[in-house]
Amino acid sequence: MNPAATLDPLLAGMPPVAAMQVHALDLSEGVLRLRAPLAANVNDKGCAFGGSLSGVMTLAGWGWLMLAAQQAGLPSEVYVADSQVRYLAPLYEDLVAEARLRGDQDWPAIARTLAERRRASATLQCAVRAADGVVVATLEARFALKRIESATG
Amino acid sequence: MNPAATLDPLLAGMPPVAAMQVHALDLSEGVLRLRAPLAANVNDKGCAFGGSLSGVMTLAGWGWLMLAAQQAGLPSEVYVADSQVRYLAPLYEDLVAEARLRGDQDWPAIARTLAERRRASATLQCAVRAADGVVVATLEARFALKRIESATG
Repeated sequence: MNPAATLDPLLAGMPPVAAMQVHALDLSEGVLRLRAPLAANVNDKGCAFGGSLSGVMTLAGWGWLMLAAQQAGLPSEVYVADSQVRYLAPLYEDLVAEARLRGDQDWPAIARTLAERRRASATLQCAVRAADGVVVATLEARFALKRIESATG
Repeated sequence: MNPAATLDPLLAGMPPVAAMQVHALDLSEGVLRLRAPLAANVNDKGCAFGGSLSGVMTLAGWGWLMLAAQQAGLPSEVYVADSQVRYLAPLYEDLVAEARLRGDQDWPAIARTLAERRRASATLQCAVRAADGVVVATLEARFALKRIESATG
């Protein structure tokens, strides 16, 4: 079972994300990848809409943390707090966004904070790559996690 | 005639923007406002999806420049180059985004550059405000303008 696929019902449940037709591709070696078809995300110039590039990268970072928190036994709500986006080149293909924890971030330490204080924050690095591997957009975002208290907790 | 309304066919022509149901409200005293209904832009937590907040603010900045270039007799393609976004509070209402030129930017100078060199860049400040006036998200973005050459030019 592909653990990334557990995101699909959540993605499909958000109307603007359903409209972008975003779905999970895979989670491998700490990198989550999401895909969205160009046809649903095209702008007035025939290439990927900037809002969709930014949106699918934000969702990849959000999804990375949703999965990591769940796998750590700490299911959480995940909120984006701020982000920096760079649009480097037009994209005339489907959007494939990847997300990973930024190199200076320590997931075990973040999970400990989340377990102890019910809140934590984490910074993710995301990118959209064309099929030839060229990065066409990047996003770095800080997210806040809020652990969901169990009914018995 | 509300000049902002000339944006509506462009907005409706982009599938992801049509899905967000974004339309122009008004352009007044240098501020362009766009609106999108919450129902089409809601996330898993019942408030406005971050990707939609960022998207509608980016579109407000893009629209500001599309209108300004057209009104200057310099119709252009407008591309977002980079942006910084801050998500300050959840929004449980329709999304109303406003865009204005950043205070240090000089539109007549930008238009002269666009006329002479066919390319220019400009930085816009955008925000989403709740009905009570509280700012719930901000976006600052740099855009590139590329003047459309006339067939006879």
